[in-house]
Amino acid sequence: MKDYFIGNKEYFPGIGKIAYEGAGTDNPLAFRFYDPDKKIGNKTMREHLRFSIAYWHSFCAGGNDPFGADTHHFPWAVKADPMEAAKDKVDAAFEFITKIDAPFYCFHDRDLAPEGKSIAESEKNLMELAGMAKERQEATGVKLLWGTANLFNHPRFMNGAATNPNFDVIPFAAAQVKAAIDATILLGGGGYVFWGGREGYMSLLNTDMKREKEHLLRFLTAARDYGRKAGFKGTFMIEPKPMEPTKHQYDYDAETVAAFIKTNGLEKDFAINIENNHATLAGHTFWHDLQVAADNGLLGSVDANQGDYQNGWDTDQFPSNVYETARAMMVILENGGFTYGGLNFDAKRRRNSTDPADLFYAHIGGMDAFALGLEIAYNINTKSELPKRKSTRYASFDSGKGAEFEAGKLSLEELRNIALDAREPETISGNQELLENILNRYMFVR
Amino acid sequence: MKDYFIGNKEYFPGIGKIAYEGAGTDNPLAFRFYDPDKKIGNKTMREHLRFSIAYWHSFCAGGNDPFGADTHHFPWAVKADPMEAAKDKVDAAFEFITKIDAPFYCFHDRDLAPEGKSIAESEKNLMELAGMAKERQEATGVKLLWGTANLFNHPRFMNGAATNPNFDVIPFAAAQVKAAIDATILLGGGGYVFWGGREGYMSLLNTDMKREKEHLLRFLTAARDYGRKAGFKGTFMIEPKPMEPTKHQYDYDAETVAAFIKTNGLEKDFAINIENNHATLAGHTFWHDLQVAADNGLLGSVDANQGDYQNGWDTDQFPSNVYETARAMMVILENGGFTYGGLNFDAKRRRNSTDPADLFYAHIGGMDAFALGLEIAYNINTKSELPKRKSTRYASFDSGKGAEFEAGKLSLEELRNIALDAREPETISGNQELLENILNRYMFVR
Amino acid sequence: MKDYFIGNKEYFPGIGKIAYEGAGTDNPLAFRFYDPDKKIGNKTMREHLRFSIAYWHSFCAGGNDPFGADTHHFPWAVKADPMEAAKDKVDAAFEFITKIDAPFYCFHDRDLAPEGKSIAESEKNLMELAGMAKERQEATGVKLLWGTANLFNHPRFMNGAATNPNFDVIPFAAAQVKAAIDATILLGGGGYVFWGGREGYMSLLNTDMKREKEHLLRFLTAARDYGRKAGFKGTFMIEPKPMEPTKHQYDYDAETVAAFIKTNGLEKDFAINIENNHATLAGHTFWHDLQVAADNGLLGSVDANQGDYQNGWDTDQFPSNVYETARAMMVILENGGFTYGGLNFDAKRRRNSTDPADLFYAHIGGMDAFALGLEIAYNINTKSELPKRKSTRYASFDSGKGAEFEAGKLSLEELRNIALDAREPETISGNQELLENILNRYMFVR
Amino acid sequence: MKDYFIGNKEYFPGIGKIAYEGAGTDNPLAFRFYDPDKKIGNKTMREHLRFSIAYWHSFCAGGNDPFGADTHHFPWAVKADPMEAAKDKVDAAFEFITKIDAPFYCFHDRDLAPEGKSIAESEKNLMELAGMAKERQEATGVKLLWGTANLFNHPRFMNGAATNPNFDVIPFAAAQVKAAIDATILLGGGGYVFWGGREGYMSLLNTDMKREKEHLLRFLTAARDYGRKAGFKGTFMIEPKPMEPTKHQYDYDAETVAAFIKTNGLEKDFAINIENNHATLAGHTFWHDLQVAADNGLLGSVDANQGDYQNGWDTDQFPSNVYETARAMMVILENGGFTYGGLNFDAKRRRNSTDPADLFYAHIGGMDAFALGLEIAYNINTKSELPKRKSTRYASFDSGKGAEFEAGKLSLEELRNIALDAREPETISGNQELLENILNRYMFVR
Repeated sequence: MKDYFIGNKEYFPGIGKIAYEGAGTDNPLAFRFYDPDKKIGNKTMREHLRFSIAYWHSFCAGGNDPFGADTHHFPWAVKADPMEAAKDKVDAAFEFITKIDAPFYCFHDRDLAPEGKSIAESEKNLMELAGMAKERQEATGVKLLWGTANLFNHPRFMNGAATNPNFDVIPFAAAQVKAAIDATILLGGGGYVFWGGREGYMSLLNTDMKREKEHLLRFLTAARDYGRKAGFKGTFMIEPKPMEPTKHQYDYDAETVAAFIKTNGLEKDFAINIENNHATLAGHTFWHDLQVAADNGLLGSVDANQGDYQNGWDTDQFPSNVYETARAMMVILENGGFTYGGLNFDAKRRRNSTDPADLFYAHIGGMDAFALGLEIAYNINTKSELPKRKSTRYASFDSGKGAEFEAGKLSLEELRNIALDAREPETISGNQELLENILNRYMFVR
Repeated sequence: MKDYFIGNKEYFPGIGKIAYEGAGTDNPLAFRFYDPDKKIGNKTMREHLRFSIAYWHSFCAGGNDPFGADTHHFPWAVKADPMEAAKDKVDAAFEFITKIDAPFYCFHDRDLAPEGKSIAESEKNLMELAGMAKERQEATGVKLLWGTANLFNHPRFMNGAATNPNFDVIPFAAAQVKAAIDATILLGGGGYVFWGGREGYMSLLNTDMKREKEHLLRFLTAARDYGRKAGFKGTFMIEPKPMEPTKHQYDYDAETVAAFIKTNGLEKDFAINIENNHATLAGHTFWHDLQVAADNGLLGSVDANQGDYQNGWDTDQFPSNVYETARAMMVILENGGFTYGGLNFDAKRRRNSTDPADLFYAHIGGMDAFALGLEIAYNINTKSELPKRKSTRYASFDSGKGAEFEAGKLSLEELRNIALDAREPETISGNQELLENILNRYMFVR
Repeated sequence: MKDYFIGNKEYFPGIGKIAYEGAGTDNPLAFRFYDPDKKIGNKTMREHLRFSIAYWHSFCAGGNDPFGADTHHFPWAVKADPMEAAKDKVDAAFEFITKIDAPFYCFHDRDLAPEGKSIAESEKNLMELAGMAKERQEATGVKLLWGTANLFNHPRFMNGAATNPNFDVIPFAAAQVKAAIDATILLGGGGYVFWGGREGYMSLLNTDMKREKEHLLRFLTAARDYGRKAGFKGTFMIEPKPMEPTKHQYDYDAETVAAFIKTNGLEKDFAINIENNHATLAGHTFWHDLQVAADNGLLGSVDANQGDYQNGWDTDQFPSNVYETARAMMVILENGGFTYGGLNFDAKRRRNSTDPADLFYAHIGGMDAFALGLEIAYNINTKSELPKRKSTRYASFDSGKGAEFEAGKLSLEELRNIALDAREPETISGNQELLENILNRYMFVR
Repeated sequence: MKDYFIGNKEYFPGIGKIAYEGAGTDNPLAFRFYDPDKKIGNKTMREHLRFSIAYWHSFCAGGNDPFGADTHHFPWAVKADPMEAAKDKVDAAFEFITKIDAPFYCFHDRDLAPEGKSIAESEKNLMELAGMAKERQEATGVKLLWGTANLFNHPRFMNGAATNPNFDVIPFAAAQVKAAIDATILLGGGGYVFWGGREGYMSLLNTDMKREKEHLLRFLTAARDYGRKAGFKGTFMIEPKPMEPTKHQYDYDAETVAAFIKTNGLEKDFAINIENNHATLAGHTFWHDLQVAADNGLLGSVDANQGDYQNGWDTDQFPSNVYETARAMMVILENGGFTYGGLNFDAKRRRNSTDPADLFYAHIGGMDAFALGLEIAYNINTKSELPKRKSTRYASFDSGKGAEFEAGKLSLEELRNIALDAREPETISGNQELLENILNRYMFVR
């Protein structure tokens, strides 16, 4: 019996379910490191990693870039009627998701269903397709990680959605978000994500940042209120990105978004969805942005991809750098692991990866990279000296005057008086190179 | 009668007071655009711009860089006894400040007085030199814009000052800050600045960001409490910088610092000191970071310099790009102008600008660039269409449904219902190129 | 009598010929600084600047970006038959070009005419449209600055055109280049440009750079040989860009391209076409890349646009920064001015500049910025101290031992022997800040 | 019997010779992956990797940065007389080099011996210390990889050495280079390196690039001529860097330097020394710059370090990223391995790595990272599909029309005629993600 879904037609013929075959396999259509049922600590790899397939990149995007036309031609995108094509796409998607053995997927409203001629028609389209997706979920056990609305592609959003200087646009954005929340509820999504691709500016010459940011807050709270009223039990998430397509995006990085959430008292409902390539575009490491989110108690979910360190745009490559995946998993494990969130492959195979199998290779590589990262991170967190070395570095704050300082009990004068009688403090080595050696030990010895 | 100060010796012989001679002058030792008594609106240029000389760059730094030794040799830095040399430096400084006709200066504790063998000796040294500076202030009318403590140069701070993982270091930092606040009060400084050059990390492998940030908060509030108790009436300011010398600095950019101030309820006492080159290192324009600070009601003062768009370190060049100065002054004027803050030249002449006159050329250029920027900004803000065009762009939020939305009175469903019956909103041009043309008109026609 | 072209229909109704009205005009549809017939030295502004309109950005590109659909909808792009639409576009283009009063334009083959079902049909389409353009040229006096072939948009070029690892692709590239050269000859273009958008790599894992670069050389020499045989008298030009859409493009920057030309002995036939935004993506200033091209005797033409210093992709904005245009014109004037080259606006109005008039504002701004730059550069080169100061800085090489060294007549030992008896050389100030002050004088006083 | 050198005093007491103990060792002062006598192919790891210690970073630099004073205090740098201190430093260096078991070292003239009051004294100092180093070399078997002269630190070079606008400086540079070549010959160095840290510009306003580059050529050829005459049999190498301390350095990257060497016919005598951090500052990967040098037949030696992807200056960290070392070794092995060159650790432990043992940890980490990289690269090059996949990708050029094209035998018309009858070429997938999976297989399975 087939353990994957095929709909009205097999869209990836010749490729079956991807299985774990071990590190030594020569089969390019097998996992070398991702062994879904292997226990790492008290959870399986599957439970830890909670992989999710991004509907938009994998089933919608045709490989175009600013200098070139589509190169990927999908057999599920051939019917002239957009609703019929959308239905074929659902089948193709569930075939792929089950063949690659991912437990989750994510979508934008417009990925799932075409925009209609009116709000009402768009809503109807979306709910019809969501209904079909729900059936497929039930048939396969695949679940929705999170939903979202595409508020950046349509020309009406060219000056922003929630932050558009023209109020007339905002109701259209609201209508989409309402419907996308409805669909997310229907499909049981654990999260709902806001990526404000156009919530920023192209030029300060025509932009009132303050007012626009206030509108963004109004919009997000209205969406939250609706979601709660409609019965959404999951977590709203904001996904930071510093720029592109805008010159500057308001949700710049994890620090900015955490501050937005906290200064506005939204932490009960909102968390952060961190994307690697967005962090690096903001001048941070992936690791850093994850840690910032975690330190704020706001690490919700992850868009798993990687950028190119020398290219200044969002290349959205599949993750393959195991240093990055291992460091990411160190933070995620220390933070207690995912609850509602997961690792969503917001990544696109290269424009010139035109074989249908490339979609599999790309996801296999990403899943293997994170499986390796998970094992390495688990070993580092549980077996290596690194956590201990970090915590003992701060031991002087665990008791005595250090603890008083940390508790806010020492005034500047009291602190100064301590120095009056003290001898010059030791300069204590950070031993960074030693720590990097320990990291490499666990990276390359398992 | 000389209208500048000369102490025990003239340190800049052959150069007198720099005067405004008009745009057409061939005299390199004259202002072409900075006419201190010229009225721009209801204030003179001097009152608007509040230029300040940075003691460290102009009187202390010898031109070394990571690949080369000092090239600037100062006649005031020749005496073997550090206290005697420091006194000569005070005289040289006031000679320069009065010759360049700047109303303000800024200092770190260690610029003014050498560190002693003990905290007590360091405090004594500082107060002795501050006393001398006070006499010079009274003799010349020059004022202190702000003071600060150097918590980054000494090896004891190599792992941070307030955020050092070793508590023993923190009292030494506290002692310096206490003394620097005392000196700032004595000298009547309107501000006290924290630039946390080492308050960040070199590697996340050995760093607990959360704990370090909490320590930073403890330290800053202790300093604030002390200052208020000691009678400091001015404003504490935090100066953002994203990196260098650390890999990552906690006070990353204006947005981060504004959030830190607001989430911790510090806005009554703290504001932001924006530096152009720090903003560009963070991936922002100077303009952006100024606007963020202003939008948060936290724009305190400005470190006036400029970076190199192609070099990824803090080049701290003197400001000469009038686009940057004009945009900066647009924000500053819109914000009501400086109150306690000013334009402090945190800039160093190039290492190979070795003529004593270069120090004058550099400051003349910076002062002229900001004087031009002031005039242009004033014209743009008061005579051009730009402010009107920006505000009318948001007119749909001034009344009706837009105003209700802005006031938080419309739910997502109400917004969606508006869209149900609405026709597709107009895509309203941002007219960015037209606005850039208007900007250039005011840049190049005065 | 109308002094601009209107074809079968007026495509920009309500906008007539753009005229110079002087710096004080409030008319947004007039030049403030570009006075075409004004003499600057012995040439008019028109003769100096040789403005050219980029067919692709201005008449073809609809404003899409990687995150959004087209926002510009052209009345000349409505007919279903692509050849009919292409003809309407020719009329629209000549209407715009004559209304904006530009003497030149540039095109890619695919801008002018649609690709056919076969090479033969594509060639026929191109020559038919080129014939129509020739008629329009004759009717209006507008000329072709240069032509080129689009070897990057079609999926067949996804792995490169001349450097494609699959030989089968190269003949298709050759066919396009042959036809584009034929069209360029027909239209009297002074140049033919190669921008190798896909001549680079996405990953070194699958790329033999050495072999690909050799293929590029083969292709370019074959094109040159064909052009010469076919009677092309103009100059072939290579346009550097470091990356995007590829991770790395072989024609990285001016230095790389100059070396390619010189090491392969192509300098008789090839020159360089410098684009500002490409220079900045490569980590250089526009000024630098122009100077490198000029120093090599290879400065052919210029793609006049500007990038965003904080965004790491090719934003292709209209030039408005007069520092950049002035420095560019300093090099161009020093180099003797353009002969066959010119200033081609390879720039696109912002996606959200959706008014038809925005296309005019954008070009007016660019033309004014370069007109200002021309005047400033002329004054700097002819009236300021800057050229003299630069040349006298090297005076020690004009005679004596310095001249012998420059001529290669001094051995290392002879040089060392000079030092044996010499006293420590003076450290001569670079006076950079003084020079920047002089630059600003000429920037802001005309 | 001790198998390491101790001079008049043991400078690293408590640390003996570092030995290979295998991947599982907990000893931080042991190699986990570098097993010097292990055969990889037909050479031992020691023979492949040819590790070299950088005299300047490891024995001279005290840990200062632009914002902080020295933190490393060396027991060999305590004597007041600079010549005596320099001699102690030689002993300390050979103790370290033999304890870490590196077969090579590199030096600048000023690292080894202090500058004297005259050229003659400087030369005498250098030859005296070189004589001592020669004795130590003979006693220990340690060899000199390459020598160089420091032409960037002294104020006289602030405007450049060979490219100084003042001829008077050039003889001083020549004297240093002559003496450094003499010392290199004495010590049997296989290479002599030019890193032109100040051969560039701070501002184009005062720089004649063309003339400066010609002077650089004159200087380098004079040095080459002298070296050959004096009996130097090794290879001269140029080390690229794009910027820092200058705004722009002429030896920008591997491509620029290769072109300089080739256009000036210097390839018989000159090769390239690639540094990772310099490549990344230039916007390239380490891998890319190595491949460019190799493709040009100019890959001489390597400065083994790594930069920080988010910091825009030369951080000169010890190499620990095994992706980078593996890719580097892939190119080096494919190129036939080092002959005279090697892996020189041009890297500094962090300023806050203040334990004496940190110098060992840092080098152990770097040596282990390259040992791992060597094994991985060897496996990839000899066992994986990657080389084959790359070469077969170009198979269409190995025969038939493709081979004719590659040989330059097909005209543009002939190419076009092939297309006339051809069917649309297949779009052949680059399979990038699959290749990345194969890379990861060999990275993580040994």
